[in-house]
Amino acid sequence: MKKLADIGLIGLAVMGENLVLNMESKGFTVAVFNRTVEKVDHFMNGRGAGKKFIGTHSIEDLCASLERPRKVMMLVKAGAPVDDFIDMLIPHLEPGDIIIDGGNSHFPDTIRRTKYVESKGLLYIGTGVSGGEEGALLGPSMMPGGSPAAWPHVKEIFQAVAAKVEDGSPCCDWVGEGGAGHFVKMVHNGIEYGDMQIINEAYHMMKELLGMSNDEMYEVFKKWNTEELDSYLIEITRDILGYKDENGEETVDFILDTAGQKGTGKWTGVSALDLGIPLTLIGESVFARCLSAQKDLRVQASKVISGPEVDFKGDKAQLIDDLKMALYGAKIISYAQGYNLMMEAAAEYGWNLNYGGIALMWRGGCIIRSAFLGDIKKAFDNNPELPNLLLDPFFKGKVEAAQAGWRRVCATALENGIPVPALTSALCYFDGFRSERLPANLLQAQRDYFGAHTYERTDKPRGEFYHTNWTGRGGDTASSTYNV
Amino acid sequence: MKKLADIGLIGLAVMGENLVLNMESKGFTVAVFNRTVEKVDHFMNGRGAGKKFIGTHSIEDLCASLERPRKVMMLVKAGAPVDDFIDMLIPHLEPGDIIIDGGNSHFPDTIRRTKYVESKGLLYIGTGVSGGEEGALLGPSMMPGGSPAAWPHVKEIFQAVAAKVEDGSPCCDWVGEGGAGHFVKMVHNGIEYGDMQIINEAYHMMKELLGMSNDEMYEVFKKWNTEELDSYLIEITRDILGYKDENGEETVDFILDTAGQKGTGKWTGVSALDLGIPLTLIGESVFARCLSAQKDLRVQASKVISGPEVDFKGDKAQLIDDLKMALYGAKIISYAQGYNLMMEAAAEYGWNLNYGGIALMWRGGCIIRSAFLGDIKKAFDNNPELPNLLLDPFFKGKVEAAQAGWRRVCATALENGIPVPALTSALCYFDGFRSERLPANLLQAQRDYFGAHTYERTDKPRGEFYHTNWTGRGGDTASSTYNV
Repeated sequence: MKKLADIGLIGLAVMGENLVLNMESKGFTVAVFNRTVEKVDHFMNGRGAGKKFIGTHSIEDLCASLERPRKVMMLVKAGAPVDDFIDMLIPHLEPGDIIIDGGNSHFPDTIRRTKYVESKGLLYIGTGVSGGEEGALLGPSMMPGGSPAAWPHVKEIFQAVAAKVEDGSPCCDWVGEGGAGHFVKMVHNGIEYGDMQIINEAYHMMKELLGMSNDEMYEVFKKWNTEELDSYLIEITRDILGYKDENGEETVDFILDTAGQKGTGKWTGVSALDLGIPLTLIGESVFARCLSAQKDLRVQASKVISGPEVDFKGDKAQLIDDLKMALYGAKIISYAQGYNLMMEAAAEYGWNLNYGGIALMWRGGCIIRSAFLGDIKKAFDNNPELPNLLLDPFFKGKVEAAQAGWRRVCATALENGIPVPALTSALCYFDGFRSERLPANLLQAQRDYFGAHTYERTDKPRGEFYHTNWTGRGGDTASSTYNV
Repeated sequence: MKKLADIGLIGLAVMGENLVLNMESKGFTVAVFNRTVEKVDHFMNGRGAGKKFIGTHSIEDLCASLERPRKVMMLVKAGAPVDDFIDMLIPHLEPGDIIIDGGNSHFPDTIRRTKYVESKGLLYIGTGVSGGEEGALLGPSMMPGGSPAAWPHVKEIFQAVAAKVEDGSPCCDWVGEGGAGHFVKMVHNGIEYGDMQIINEAYHMMKELLGMSNDEMYEVFKKWNTEELDSYLIEITRDILGYKDENGEETVDFILDTAGQKGTGKWTGVSALDLGIPLTLIGESVFARCLSAQKDLRVQASKVISGPEVDFKGDKAQLIDDLKMALYGAKIISYAQGYNLMMEAAAEYGWNLNYGGIALMWRGGCIIRSAFLGDIKKAFDNNPELPNLLLDPFFKGKVEAAQAGWRRVCATALENGIPVPALTSALCYFDGFRSERLPANLLQAQRDYFGAHTYERTDKPRGEFYHTNWTGRGGDTASSTYNV
C-alpha cells in the first residue's frame, strides 16, 4: 500500500511550488494538483523530481492520496476559483477533513466560507501567507484562522515551514475564528502601505529640502537600520539608494513616481471606516498612492500653481535625526491604529485574537518584519488587555521622546511646501488621542442646530440626550433620537 | 369626475409632511399615503385640512388618484422599505409612470433600482433632498438622478418647491443617470463633514492656543460670515458661540465632545477608496469623529501622555487672520477633492454630470450653502471641462494667496500639540498636487524589490514596465505584470 501524503496542495503557480518545496524540505509528503494538469507533470519532472511529492491528475485522485483527516490547501487566485474548488472538493472529503485557503482572500469571504464548509461537516482554514515567492520557499509569515478544531491538525506543518525569529519561535500561530487570519493579513498589508509611505516622506525631505544625494541617503538608511528603525523596509531602501545599474546610473532616479496598488490597503481603509476606527496613517498612505497616480494632472498643476521657495537654514544633521524620530513616532501611531482596528474587529466579529502572537507572526518572514515588532510582543506579554499601544509604558516613553523632533520635521515640511501627509496625520492623531477634550462639542452643537440631533452633556450622565432651541425660532422638537 | 393629483407621496413622517405642504403651497394637488393609514387621516384633519390634498388608504387608491404619467414619491426609511414599496407600486402603474425615492438611499441601491424599475417599463428617480425638515417645508436643495426621460415630467414640481438663490435660480436640476443623484447627495454630506471639521479645528486653535472666550470667537465668526467664508455653517457657529441658556451659561462649553455620524461621511470615504481618489480632507474628518467617540481612552491617555506646553508668542490678530486663510484654503481643497471624486464616478458609472449645476444645487437650501459655491459655479461656466478646481484661475489665485497664513497655522498647531488633521491633510494634498515629482519612485522601487512588481521609467514611454534585480541574488523574473 502506497504511502499517503501529509497534505495536498491545489495550485502550482510560483507561490504554490515554493510552498510545497518548503514543506517537503521539512520532511512532509505533499500531494499536488493543478487545474491545468500538465503543470503537475512538469513539476514532478522538474523542481519536484526525486522528492516526496505525489502528483495527481484529478481532485478525486488528490483526495484519495491524503492521510485522514485530509488537509487540502488551495493557493489559487482569490475570488470565484476558491469557491469553485471548495465545491469540487466537498464530495471527495469526509467529516473532519480540512480545506485551507492560502490565497489573498478578502476576510468577509473567509467568514462566509468557514460557515459554509463547517455546515458540510468539514473544517476550514483561511490563512494569510506573507513574504512573497522567496518567503514561501524559505519561510513565510503565516496567519491562519477559521475553524479552531482544524488548528491542531495543521500546526506542525505550518509552524515547520514558517519563518523563525532569533529564539526559534515560528512566525505562525493560530489567529482566531472565521475570517480572523485573512483580516490580520489585510491589516498587515495596510501597515506595509504606511511603513512605506513614511519612508517615502523622509526620503522626499532629505532629497528636496536638504538636497542630499542618493549616496548620502544610503548612509543614513544604513545607519538607521542598525538602530530602533531596524527593519526589512529600511534595509531595502538602503539597497535601492545604493544601487547603480550597469552604466553606473542610479536607477531610483529614473523610476516613474506613480504608485500602483493591489487593493489590500484599500480594504484596510474601508474596514476602518466600516468599524469607525481612526486609521489615519494608513488612510493617508492609500490616498498618497492615489495622488501619485494622477501624474498628468500634477504635471499640469506644477506648471501653474506656485508654492514657497524651499529654504532650509537649520542644522542638517539635526533634521536628519529629527526625521528618524518622526519615522519612529509615526510608526508607533500606525501600529497603535492597526491594533485598534483589530481589537474592534475582534469585538465586532467575535474573534479571540492573540495580539502578542500577531506581533510575533509579523516579526519575521514578511515585508513589515522589524525589531520594533519584538517590542510590541513584549507590550502584550506585559499586559494582554492593553487597550492601546500608546498606553504601554515603553511605547508611551518612546513616542514622548520622539515628539520634539517629529514636530520640527512636520512644521518644517509644511512651511517649505513638502507634502508629508502620513507623518502629519499621525502627529495630529497623537495630539487628538492625548486630548481629554476635543472640539467635537462644537460639532455636536452644529448637528443639534441644523438637524436637532441632540447632544450629551459634560455635567450629566452619559446616555442622556439634550436639545437646544438655538435660534429661538421653530419648536423644541428634536429628531427621533431625542429621549429626555 | 374628481380632480386627479399632480403627484403622490408615500411616507408622512415630518420630512414627507413638510415636503407635501411645500408642494401644495406652490399650487400642486398632492395625493398622500402612509403605511400606518391613521397618519393619513390625522394629516388630512390637521396640517393638511382645507388644502389641495387627496388622502388615500391603499397603494391602489393612491395610484388611482394620480394624473398620468403618474408620479409617486417615497419618503421612507432607506433600505428594504424602498424595495418593498417599489414592488407594491409596480402592479398599479402603467408604462411611463414614475417612481421617485426621496430618501437617503445609498447610490448603488439607486443604480440597481433604476434598472429594475425600467425593466418593468416604468421610470425611476432617486433624488437627494437636503435641508432637513425646515428645508423640506421652505425650500430644499434637490439632486435628482435616474431615468432621464422622467425629468421633464417632474421638473416643474421639483424646481417650484426647491430653494432659490438670489437671482431666482432653483437649487434643483437634473444630475444624471442611475444613482447619480444619490451619489451627489452623498458627496454633499461628505463635504459637510469636512466643512464642519475645519471650523472645529479653527475653534480649537482659538480656544486652546489663543485662550479666546466664546464671546471673542463669536465676533470672529460674525466677521467671517461677511467675508469670503460667508456660509450657513459659519453663521450657525457664530450663533452657537453666542448662545447662553436661561441661566446665562454658555451651552457650547457643556456639550460632550463625542461626535456622532449617520454613515454618509463613511460612504463617501469608502467610495473614494473604491474609485482610487485622494479624498483626504473628508477622510480625516470622518476619522476625527471616530477619535472623538473614543472618549474614555482619550481621558485615560490625557492623564499619562505628555505633550508640549502651549506657548503662543506671536501676533494674535495675525493668527486669527491666518486661520481664516487656512479655512479658506482647506475648503478649496475639500471641494476640489469632492469634484475629483464626482468626475471619477461619472467616468466609472457612465453618468453625464453637470458640475456647475451641482454647485448651484448646493448653493442654497442645504447645510453647505455658501457664497463660495457661486464661485464654483462660475469656474465650471468658464470651463465645463475643468479637470480640477485648483486649475481654475480664480481658485488657483485664492489658494496661492491663502497658503502663507495656512502654513503658519498648521506649523503653529503641530508645534503646540493642537490636532488639526483636516487642515494639515488638505495642505499636504495641495503640496502633493502641485508636485511634478513625488517620492513614489522610491515606493515603486520598494515594490519591485520585494515583489518584482516592475516599474515605469521617466526616460521611457508610459506602459513599458521594467524590473531590476536589486540584490544580485535570485533571478531576473518579474511578477506576471512584467511585459518588457
